[in-house]
Amino acid sequence: MNLVEETLAAIAPLDLEAWRAASARLDSLTKPPRSLGYLEDFVRQYAAIRHDPAARFGGGALMVFVADHGVADAAVSAYPKGVTVEMLRNIGAGGAAISVLARSFGYQLMVTDVGVEADTSLSPLPGVRYRRVGPGTRNFLQGPAMSLAEARRALEIGIETTHEAAASGTTLVGIGEMGIANSTSAAAILAALTGLEPRRVAGRGTGLDDAGLERKIGAVEAALRLHRDSFKDGLQTLAALGGFEIAAMAGACLAAAARHLPMVIDGFIATAAAAIAQKIRPGLFDYMFFGHRSAEGGHSMVLEILGVRPILDLGMRLGEGTGAALAMKTIESALAMFHQMATFASAGVSGKLES
Amino acid sequence: MNLVEETLAAIAPLDLEAWRAASARLDSLTKPPRSLGYLEDFVRQYAAIRHDPAARFGGGALMVFVADHGVADAAVSAYPKGVTVEMLRNIGAGGAAISVLARSFGYQLMVTDVGVEADTSLSPLPGVRYRRVGPGTRNFLQGPAMSLAEARRALEIGIETTHEAAASGTTLVGIGEMGIANSTSAAAILAALTGLEPRRVAGRGTGLDDAGLERKIGAVEAALRLHRDSFKDGLQTLAALGGFEIAAMAGACLAAAARHLPMVIDGFIATAAAAIAQKIRPGLFDYMFFGHRSAEGGHSMVLEILGVRPILDLGMRLGEGTGAALAMKTIESALAMFHQMATFASAGVSGKLES
Repeated sequence: MNLVEETLAAIAPLDLEAWRAASARLDSLTKPPRSLGYLEDFVRQYAAIRHDPAARFGGGALMVFVADHGVADAAVSAYPKGVTVEMLRNIGAGGAAISVLARSFGYQLMVTDVGVEADTSLSPLPGVRYRRVGPGTRNFLQGPAMSLAEARRALEIGIETTHEAAASGTTLVGIGEMGIANSTSAAAILAALTGLEPRRVAGRGTGLDDAGLERKIGAVEAALRLHRDSFKDGLQTLAALGGFEIAAMAGACLAAAARHLPMVIDGFIATAAAAIAQKIRPGLFDYMFFGHRSAEGGHSMVLEILGVRPILDLGMRLGEGTGAALAMKTIESALAMFHQMATFASAGVSGKLES
Repeated sequence: MNLVEETLAAIAPLDLEAWRAASARLDSLTKPPRSLGYLEDFVRQYAAIRHDPAARFGGGALMVFVADHGVADAAVSAYPKGVTVEMLRNIGAGGAAISVLARSFGYQLMVTDVGVEADTSLSPLPGVRYRRVGPGTRNFLQGPAMSLAEARRALEIGIETTHEAAASGTTLVGIGEMGIANSTSAAAILAALTGLEPRRVAGRGTGLDDAGLERKIGAVEAALRLHRDSFKDGLQTLAALGGFEIAAMAGACLAAAARHLPMVIDGFIATAAAAIAQKIRPGLFDYMFFGHRSAEGGHSMVLEILGVRPILDLGMRLGEGTGAALAMKTIESALAMFHQMATFASAGVSGKLES
C-alpha cells in the first residue's frame, strides 16, 4: 500500500462525542447560549476533528507550496514567470505578506519548493524546503500538465509535509500557495469539478487587463475540451490541469484529515486543491475550514456550490495562505475563549430567566 | 466651554496626505496592487485618522462601559438585572469573553462602571474603574431615561476614558458595553435615528422567547411614541432612551476622533452609540471602523442604512467589545504587513508586465 492509499485508509470519522462535550462546555460559559455565533461552531468542529473534547491548541503551522506552471507560456498572468522564484526567496527571507502574518501570530511557516522553474536547491534559499517534482508543470494546452506518477509524487509531498507539521505538535494547519499562472490551473480545475462555465470561474488573478482575461478564459475553455475525459477521477483531473503545488495541497488535505489536524484552506487556488481532495475522498470537507471568500474570479460562487461558508470576507486575493492565516487566528481566538472563560457556576453569574 | 464642546471643536479633518502616502507605500509592497482588499483600506484610513503616513501602531485598548437600565423592569431581557453586576465582576476578574480576548491580543482592558444598579464602589471589584452617573437609568416607558445633565456627564466619562487611553500610548481603541436590557435601549435609539420600524430593529438580545420579543417590540414602540419630540437632537435622544453606557460610548466616539485615535465599534449596542455620536457630529463615521455584523435584530440592515461595511461577519451577538477586539486584531495584522513587508525594489521582485 503506498502513501496515498495509506493516508486515505487512515481517515477516521469525526468524533461526535468530542463535538457534544465541547458543545456542552460552550453552553456553560458566561455568555448567552450560541452568542459567539460561528466561533462556537469552529470550536465544536475543531474538537470533533481532533478527537479531543478539550479542543487543546498546540500551535499553528502554515504550509505554503510553491511551483511553476507551463501554461504561463500562454500569457495568462500579469507577472512574468520569474516572479515565482523571486517570491519563493521573499517568502523564505521574511518579506512576503505570509511571512509577516506567520511571524505576528507565532505560526510555523513551512515553505516548500515543489517545482519552481529556476532550481535554487544547490544554493538553497534560507527558510525554503526543497521537495521538487520537476522544473514546473508542462503547458496543459498541449497535453497533461503532469504524469500520473508526478501527480502522485506531489500528493505525497503534501502528505509528508503534513506529517512533519503534526509531529512538531501543531494542531491547526493553514494551506496556501504561490506560483505564477496557478489561478489559470485552479480555474480549470474548479470549472471541471463544479460544471461552472470558465467565464464565471476565471478571474484577473494578479491583475490581468481585459485582453489578458479573455486569453485566460480561452485557455481554460481549451483545456476543458482537451482533457474532458479525465474529469471523472480526482487524480487524473489533477494530472491533466496541474500544478505541483495544487497537488501537494490536495495531499496535505488528505493527510490533515488522517492526522486529526484541523486545516484552513486559503483562497481560490487552495480551494481547487480542496475540491480535488474531496473528489478523491468524498466527505473530506467535514475536516476543513475555508479561510476566506477571495475576490478572485468566481470564488464566491464556487464556495456556494461546494456548500461551504468562509470564515472571513475581506476582499483579499493575494494567496500565499494569507487568508488562511487570518482565519486561523480567528479559530485560535475562539479556542482561547473556550479554554479560559469562566462558567456560570465558577463566576457566580445567574442563568436565564424562566419564561 | 465644557468638555463636550471642547471635544467637538478639536475634531480635525482626516489627513489626506497621510492617506495618499500610505496608499503609495501599499502599492510598493511585494503583492499585486490592492490584493489585500479591505485590509489596504484599513491601513489608509488608519493613517488618515492618525495623521501619520507611517501608520504606526502603539497598542490597542478596549473600553467597555457597563450600566443598568430602568426598562429592564418591563421584562425585556432573558436574564435578570442582577447579571449586570455579576458580569462586571466577571469581566474585571478575567473570566468574560472580552477579558480573554484582551489578554490574548495584549490589549489594555478598561472596564468602567458608569451606573450599575448595585454599587460596588465601596469595596471595589478588581479591574473595574468607577465613574458612576447613578444606579442605572430610569424606565424610559415612564419618562426620559436620564436628565440632560446626566447624559452630558455620561458623555464626559466616555471622553475622559478615551483621553486616558490616548495618554497611555494606545493608537487603536475598541468600544463595547455590557448592561442587561441595553439592546432594548439601543433598538429604540436605532429605530429613532434610522426611521426603521421597531419590529425590524429589535432582536432577541441575550435570548428572548417569542413572547419576550413581542414585549420588547411593544416597549420600543411605546418609547418612540412617548419621546418622539426628542429625536431631532442627538443629546435629547440619548437622554430620552438611555443608557449611561451608550452615552459614554458616544462620548468615546467623539473623543477618539478628536484625539486622532482610530476606533472600532463593536456590535448592535455600540452602533447605537456611534449613530448618536454621528447625529451630534455629522461626518464622524469617517473616523470609525465597524467591527462586525452582529446577529442581533436588525443590525445588518442598520449598517446598510448607515452606509458602513463591517469588518467581520461571524454571527456573534455577545457584546462586551468582543467583535471589536477581533476586528482590531485584523487591523493590527494589516498594519503589520504594511510595516514589515518587503518592497518590489528591496526584495528584487519583478513588477507587472506591460500589456
